[in-house]
Order: sequence, then structure tokens, then C-alpha cells
Amino acid sequence: MKRIVLLRHGESEWNLENRFTGWTDVDLTPKGVSEALHAGELLKEKDFHFDIAYTSFLKRAVKTLNCALDKLNQDWIPVQKSWRLNEKHYGVLQGLNKAETAQQYGEEQVMIWRRSFDVAPQPLLDDDPRNPRFDSRYKDVPDMELPRTESLKDAIHRTMPYWECMIFPNLKTADEILVVAHGNSLRGIVKHLKDISDEDIVNLNLPTGVPYVFEFDEALNLVNDYFLGNPDEVKKLMEEVANQAKKK
Amino acid sequence: MKRIVLLRHGESEWNLENRFTGWTDVDLTPKGVSEALHAGELLKEKDFHFDIAYTSFLKRAVKTLNCALDKLNQDWIPVQKSWRLNEKHYGVLQGLNKAETAQQYGEEQVMIWRRSFDVAPQPLLDDDPRNPRFDSRYKDVPDMELPRTESLKDAIHRTMPYWECMIFPNLKTADEILVVAHGNSLRGIVKHLKDISDEDIVNLNLPTGVPYVFEFDEALNLVNDYFLGNPDEVKKLMEEVANQAKKK
Repeated sequence: MKRIVLLRHGESEWNLENRFTGWTDVDLTPKGVSEALHAGELLKEKDFHFDIAYTSFLKRAVKTLNCALDKLNQDWIPVQKSWRLNEKHYGVLQGLNKAETAQQYGEEQVMIWRRSFDVAPQPLLDDDPRNPRFDSRYKDVPDMELPRTESLKDAIHRTMPYWECMIFPNLKTADEILVVAHGNSLRGIVKHLKDISDEDIVNLNLPTGVPYVFEFDEALNLVNDYFLGNPDEVKKLMEEVANQAKKK
Repeated sequence: MKRIVLLRHGESEWNLENRFTGWTDVDLTPKGVSEALHAGELLKEKDFHFDIAYTSFLKRAVKTLNCALDKLNQDWIPVQKSWRLNEKHYGVLQGLNKAETAQQYGEEQVMIWRRSFDVAPQPLLDDDPRNPRFDSRYKDVPDMELPRTESLKDAIHRTMPYWECMIFPNLKTADEILVVAHGNSLRGIVKHLKDISDEDIVNLNLPTGVPYVFEFDEALNLVNDYFLGNPDEVKKLMEEVANQAKKK
């Protein structure tokens, strides 16, 4: 039995401030760190031994991974980082307070940006200091591939080549793989693995800090998937995330 | 100007307990974490932007690196880990209290094991649970290369191929490289870079948590080396490490 575990990062500072984050590199809150350590404990209880781990270029995901590996005493395993696992890029909305944005653009429009499959917020202008072309971490990414905004569809579209070429093929030799990323890049992976429709994927609200286990047979067919931890607690966490998305 | 920074991990739990650590995977103490964060601050003040970082397979080094990168907001850079950057293997002494060992084997013998260049403690037996062949993190290392004990000379001998083949050649394209490791693996690198004799290298006591900067010209010749931070403080830290080594 081979296993891939998906893990969404814990609470970040801008979750708390109710601001659009996207590619902004904000830190975890102390609660976010606790969530990450708890995820590591759940994985340790189930005796996971990861061969390799993947994460994004964003601090909140990298730190969640580091905390989980530390709790597992698997600090030493190889870790690969890629911008393709980053959160969805929120364009000009990045940094704005969600409530203020609703006042400015209307609630209906904001809900479309936040919850539709293929509508992206307005893109960042080329001279906007938030434009990723000014961030040295993306210097090796061809400019035409660097997003200035993304719909969920766009975010999934740039995540999946990394999944298909880099992460999933590793399961041929590795037995257990850990992927720590963001709500929307992980949605892409789950959509692919479970063949979820465009309409339904926007309603998938992954809980933060809860390991989501996918089991594969030797032919690498998906045979089972489940969250670790107390099912009632997981359900409650998923509802919280769904309500968070509805929050003004 | 190209730069490589060497950083020795912060205080570990067994530093505090005065036990021989070697390849035992002990954690940092809270003070060790503070030292690591302080190192990150010193590097941030001097505006370092690392292209890549290297560390060992041991938690105390990996965590020191993670803390420093976090403080630098460079969590996203690629990190390579290798057993070749591990601390010197202390053979049968690993886990023993240093004072008790002196009672058992005599102080003179213990000082030889700790401070000589080419005398190694007795090796771990093949069925000793501390033998690295039982540790899955070393499963890809050929058994004949896995040490059961090491002199400083042995530790340097297995560290340097990694420096020569993996770390240093990267300076052709990278501008700034960070290496976070251990007292003895770093001694090997400093010995090589500064052409220090076998006799003198045993007297080099690198302070923990103090970035040691090496500057190279475009032809990759070493042109300067210095510690970051207050010189008086660095001197005091080096004396502390030297005294630590003399501690019974």
C-alpha cells in the first residue's frame, strides 16, 4: 500500500486579519504553528515514514511542513519546493480586507471572485510592487508563466503539471509522500484524484492542519482516502473553513 | 563578490546534559533555537540573499537552518541535506556522559578521543542498536561508507567529497550559499579553505550560532573571512566552546 498525504497549512496572520492573501508571504500565527505540530502528531501516531515531501514557495506552507516533520522526527527527509504549489493568486485583491472589498466592489462580485471556478480578480499591473516579477524567488520562472491573477481554474492548471511530472511519478519508488500546500493548489490535486467536477470542487473546503490520506495499490490506482483524526472534529473544521469563506 | 556562510548549530539537549552526541539525533534546546534565530537576524542585517543552503541529516542542524531561513524570510530557497555534513561519529561513546566516561576510561584517554586528530573511539558493534545501519535515513548510503566511529580525520575525510562535488562548485552560478552543520564537519571545510594543519585544526573552536562568512573573488579564490556580530562577543563565545571541550 502506497500513500500520499495532503496537508493544508495552518492559520496565517492574514486569515486572522480577514485579508486576501494569495501569493503574499505572510507568516503562520501561533495557532497555525500548533495546528502544524498537531498534524505531525497525528501522522506520528499512524507511523508514517515519508520518503520525500513537497511544498510551495510560501512561508506558511514551508513552516507547516517543517513543524510537522520536526514532530515526526523526520526533519532529515528531502524536501522539494515549487511555486506551482502556491496558493491561488488573488490579483489586485491581494492585501485588501475582505469586508472593505465587499463595500468597494459589492458583495456579489466578491463572492464570484472567491467562489467561482473560472473568474479571476483583476490582474496586477506590471509596475505594481506586488507583481511577482519583482520577487527574486520567481526569477527562474519564465515571465509568461508568472500569474498576475488567477481563477481557481488557472491555479489548478499551473499546479497539475508539477503533480503529474514531479510528485506522482515518485510513487513508483517511494512508499509515502507528503504534500503541504494551500486550499486551492490542493483542491486541484483532490479534483484530479477523485475526478470531481468543476462545479463541485468550489464546495470542497479542506480543513487546515488535518492530514488527508490517499492510499494507492501497487498499480498506483487510488483505493481509499480519508482524513486523520477524530471525524466529528474534522467535520467541524471543514464547516469552519466553509463559514470562513462566507465571512464578510 | 561571492560568499559562503558556515553556521554551527545552536545548543542541543545533550550539550546541556554533557553527553557525547555524535550522530544521535537530539533536539535543540530553547536556547539553541534562540541562537539560530539570532544568526538569522545577523544575516538579515547584512542583507544576505542565499541561492541555496546545505545541512546535515541531524535535527539540530536542520532546525537551526530552518530558524535562520525563517528569520531571513528565505524559507523558500532550495535546501539539500546530506549525511556527509553530520557531526563526527563518536562510536561507543555516543550517549555516555562525559564525566562518567572519564571515570571509566581515564581522563587522558577521553581527551585523546575528544581532541586528537586521528584517534577514534571504539567502534559500535554491528548489533548495537545505535549502529547507523539500523537507521532508515541512511538506507541509501553504501554500508562500507557508513561509519561506526570516526576520528576528526575520518569525519573530515567523508565530509570533503560533498564540499568538493556538491557545495563549492555551485558557487560558479550561485552568489551566496549557506551551510549549517556541526563543529567537526565545519572544521573540515575551514581546514580546507584556510589550509590549516592537522595539529592546529583541533584548536579551532567554532562558536555556535555565529555566521562565519567566506568571501571569494570571481575566480573563486578566498579573499576574506570573518564572523558576523560583535567581535568581543564572538571571542567570548569561542572561549566558551573551548572551555566546554575541557569540561569534565
